[in-house]
Amino acid sequence: MSKWLLPENLADILPAEARRIEELRRELLDLYRSHGFELVAPPLVEYLDSLLSGSGSDLNLRTCKLVDQLSGRTLGVRADITPQVSRIDAHLLNRTGVTRLCYCGTVLHARPADLLSDRELLQIGAEVFGHEGVEADIQIIQMALESVQRAGVPRPRLDLGHPGIFRAIVAADPALAEIEAELSECVAAKDQSGIQALCAQAGQVRGDLVEALLTLPGLYGGVSVLERALRSLPSLPAIQKAVHDMQTLIQALPDYDFSVDLADIGTGYAYHTGVVFAVYAQGWHNAVVRGGRYDGVGKAFGRARPATGFSLDLRKLSSGLEPAPLATAIQAPWGTDAALIQAIRKLREAGEIVVQVLPGQSHSLDEFNIDRELVLSNGRWQVESVV
Amino acid sequence: MSKWLLPENLADILPAEARRIEELRRELLDLYRSHGFELVAPPLVEYLDSLLSGSGSDLNLRTCKLVDQLSGRTLGVRADITPQVSRIDAHLLNRTGVTRLCYCGTVLHARPADLLSDRELLQIGAEVFGHEGVEADIQIIQMALESVQRAGVPRPRLDLGHPGIFRAIVAADPALAEIEAELSECVAAKDQSGIQALCAQAGQVRGDLVEALLTLPGLYGGVSVLERALRSLPSLPAIQKAVHDMQTLIQALPDYDFSVDLADIGTGYAYHTGVVFAVYAQGWHNAVVRGGRYDGVGKAFGRARPATGFSLDLRKLSSGLEPAPLATAIQAPWGTDAALIQAIRKLREAGEIVVQVLPGQSHSLDEFNIDRELVLSNGRWQVESVV
Repeated sequence: MSKWLLPENLADILPAEARRIEELRRELLDLYRSHGFELVAPPLVEYLDSLLSGSGSDLNLRTCKLVDQLSGRTLGVRADITPQVSRIDAHLLNRTGVTRLCYCGTVLHARPADLLSDRELLQIGAEVFGHEGVEADIQIIQMALESVQRAGVPRPRLDLGHPGIFRAIVAADPALAEIEAELSECVAAKDQSGIQALCAQAGQVRGDLVEALLTLPGLYGGVSVLERALRSLPSLPAIQKAVHDMQTLIQALPDYDFSVDLADIGTGYAYHTGVVFAVYAQGWHNAVVRGGRYDGVGKAFGRARPATGFSLDLRKLSSGLEPAPLATAIQAPWGTDAALIQAIRKLREAGEIVVQVLPGQSHSLDEFNIDRELVLSNGRWQVESVV
Repeated sequence: MSKWLLPENLADILPAEARRIEELRRELLDLYRSHGFELVAPPLVEYLDSLLSGSGSDLNLRTCKLVDQLSGRTLGVRADITPQVSRIDAHLLNRTGVTRLCYCGTVLHARPADLLSDRELLQIGAEVFGHEGVEADIQIIQMALESVQRAGVPRPRLDLGHPGIFRAIVAADPALAEIEAELSECVAAKDQSGIQALCAQAGQVRGDLVEALLTLPGLYGGVSVLERALRSLPSLPAIQKAVHDMQTLIQALPDYDFSVDLADIGTGYAYHTGVVFAVYAQGWHNAVVRGGRYDGVGKAFGRARPATGFSLDLRKLSSGLEPAPLATAIQAPWGTDAALIQAIRKLREAGEIVVQVLPGQSHSLDEFNIDRELVLSNGRWQVESVV
């Protein structure tokens, strides 16, 4: 096997693409900054138990492990930055008020999420800690949608879910609570006969709750699904609040198209507790952005805090966009003449890209298009078009 | 042990520091772009044998290993990005002319380089491939110095070395070539008695070469060292060329202070072949920037190319700088009133940071200083100073 062959689902990012990803990175970090989100950078590797605190088993399976030569303990290369940022909020910043944090960094997956996915992601995201109201969810969803719009994603669609509804049903009967994990998989898979079989095995279960679980897989579609949910689900306070929160949220964002899926309760990392959402668009397999509420994730670090946020993979975001036009550049000759050096410096300070050609150099560039050159004309250095 | 304790020599970067690192990152990437360097992003992990190609044993010891779940082969988490960029030049871009590449990414060290160093670095750097003239070295050193100046490093000092001189001496006698590795350690440590002992063990060695090796450790100081080297070292063509290249380079950069150390031949990654340099400054332990020429490193990938470049750790660079002043921000109330939303949007588009306070929120911020607020006054939203 050639030495330079890369492992599967890992890639070199070449100039034009790398530059676009860098531009998206800046655009989005600036957007979050303009909303008052503070930037943090947790480490690439941590002790495994800290890295996996409060998350589901899926994250463990996705995490690459290595042995720390200094401590002998197992380290994990992060597969998700969100739990790290919760740790920073819960333990390190230790503020009582609302904290808004954003981040951008590399994460690694032991296995690709699916055949088309990379194992290295450039995860960017934003999180609000310390606020349990739907207003924080609105702010987060607004920023997630503005992120994809700034990037130029055409016609994003937003899917809403709420694992709290499923949890409220299950919590109402101890017999259901015991089989919560298995039930959640059946509901997420919209597997009604599976739900029925599980409830039958569980023995004595309240009939209206079984009915509610069987109803969930059908509760998807336009926003009218929420009205239907209020009519057909048991009137538990947690369910009422969940549905009303979703309605408030949809009203606060009148410019967007929503769809609702109350069976979309997330199996994956399984830390979500409230409104969850995903942004889809033509040209991207699977969701471009995912996010939602995950109250209490800081508990493992000694401080349960309300939290809501979103994240996306900048490489995936970039891969679906139209190719960007090349930047234009000016070619200049090599020389140590002070006037030449001064002319080049001025052009660069004015934002121009100036490629100073080395003696004997020939060119080829992927990222820049050389359309002008710096030439000495009547004793002065001037920029002229390349013919 | 607390779950949230981080492994030694690894850290969370908190808001004000993280923002400064981000600003440095942009400033330097923009500087390299203005010089026509194309951005690339090699993967965080690769097959170990590819990652270590053409480098010394030191890089192997610094590299964290893990097993690829897809192929069963050993992967390494990169401890240096330069060899990856050489691979991209040699194999992937496969151009015949001059190629200028830059990059910025996370690298991980299995052990810290020294007690004060972190194990996670944010390595940024630039490389010129395909040009063996000293002009490429000049361009690289100029850009390295401009990098630290843009960052605000006070009075950078530049140390120059040239492993080619040591190599030329050793290559002139097969008996010396056999003990090159041991000799290089003694020379780098300026250990004259060690050099003497090794040469005595080696048996028949040309006397003028032993003399030259013993002279090297004393050849350090101001630029006059180069004149001294021409007089005292054997007149091998490779030595003459090396010294003349260094003189040309110093003349081309008249604005900087140089010192020369001809025994500084680099043991570490050991891929350097020509002029090497390091930038030092008060406030930073060890060098802030390192770089130099490493012709032929692409050979392992099927294409030996001349190459010269530099890199630095943005986190280390930032850690020695004065704290940056906080950015100022505007506080705005929560609400869905269209006029309020429009006012906030306009302020953000104008580059302001607007923190929209959530119902019941209290504040504390590390990164921003709220000095104004958006208030409704006579039916219009206006920015007023916070008293």
